[in-house]
Amino acid sequence: MQIAILLYDRFTALDAVGPYDTLGRLPGAETVFVAERTGPVRNDSGGLALVADATLEEVTAPDVLVVPGGPGQSDLMADGPLHEWLRTVDATTTWTTSVCTGSLLLAAAGLLEGRRATSHWLALDQLKQYGVEPTGERVVVDGKYVTAAGVSSGIDMGLALLGRLADDTVAQTVQLGIEYDPQPPYDSGSPEKAPAAIVEALRGRSRFLLTGSA
Amino acid sequence: MQIAILLYDRFTALDAVGPYDTLGRLPGAETVFVAERTGPVRNDSGGLALVADATLEEVTAPDVLVVPGGPGQSDLMADGPLHEWLRTVDATTTWTTSVCTGSLLLAAAGLLEGRRATSHWLALDQLKQYGVEPTGERVVVDGKYVTAAGVSSGIDMGLALLGRLADDTVAQTVQLGIEYDPQPPYDSGSPEKAPAAIVEALRGRSRFLLTGSA
Repeated sequence: MQIAILLYDRFTALDAVGPYDTLGRLPGAETVFVAERTGPVRNDSGGLALVADATLEEVTAPDVLVVPGGPGQSDLMADGPLHEWLRTVDATTTWTTSVCTGSLLLAAAGLLEGRRATSHWLALDQLKQYGVEPTGERVVVDGKYVTAAGVSSGIDMGLALLGRLADDTVAQTVQLGIEYDPQPPYDSGSPEKAPAAIVEALRGRSRFLLTGSA
Repeated sequence: MQIAILLYDRFTALDAVGPYDTLGRLPGAETVFVAERTGPVRNDSGGLALVADATLEEVTAPDVLVVPGGPGQSDLMADGPLHEWLRTVDATTTWTTSVCTGSLLLAAAGLLEGRRATSHWLALDQLKQYGVEPTGERVVVDGKYVTAAGVSSGIDMGLALLGRLADDTVAQTVQLGIEYDPQPPYDSGSPEKAPAAIVEALRGRSRFLLTGSA
């Protein structure tokens, strides 16, 4: 069982590490971080690099694919070798998954057409141009395609997938192991719950947040 | 404002990245990953490396220190250069923090004596030998020392600290930005909530989980 997590310049670290430290704890599974080139890949703010241990060419048949989001996604929407790789590995995955704006990459590669999917709440509308039906759910399962909402939702997705790849006991064991008993000090985690002024402020900055450009 | 996140061999990735993608989003702050040597530092399972961009010698006066946990913590409990560094930077920090078994490192360096603190639920008892009063709370603030429970709790700690370092609006904005509206598919995130058989199974494996050795 191989789980491949894609890295690219200006990805969001928690998008990748949330699934990694849940799904990646599946007994017997090997997780590999994969990118165009091996070596350090810088995140959205530039303050952190994760190391890609394999190139796209070296990962040809993962059982599970995880595509994180991040501002760098906006540089990768044109068809090309990355989309080709996504389509190639998707042909044999058991699960093809994304966190945050990673779903836009899957959609642009043509993998979500006609399906229901989610993304970061600021990016949901963009799914429509690829023939995808956006939903506001935190984790959406449509066939073998599992998409999660913004950044931190990859933890919930990872646990949900563990339940399907293994069983409830394995998923509950991992949840207890990472002590995932969330107690956010604020209740501001979705546009429905956050103060309206904060939602509007983020909407105003959405182009910056989603692409990293001013 | 500088936030320093410590890395060491066999740390747990989410322990570091949870605070990074919350606290690290503080406007105007610079976050630096620091280790004994610069370059890739491998995590507990070996499947992921994060890059340390600065050595201990190069980070002398961070405003906020974050010490993640992980099995590798057990190799670092003897006094030495790392403990010396922890004590030196702690002398001028505004906040000295930890996630998971990172609190054992702070405790072993003598920084938590006489204080209340938390850790991974499997490691709580170990705090006592350093004169620390363990608590089962998810995030514990005692003076300038903020300790968080296991692995995923660093996200809650990061948001709580943002509220103190900046204000509620900044913290709520970051929470909405990372869409932290947790919806775990199971309710198994603490020993009080998880099925008893799963708690006992993890207790039986605790030496392995906490030290990585069989």
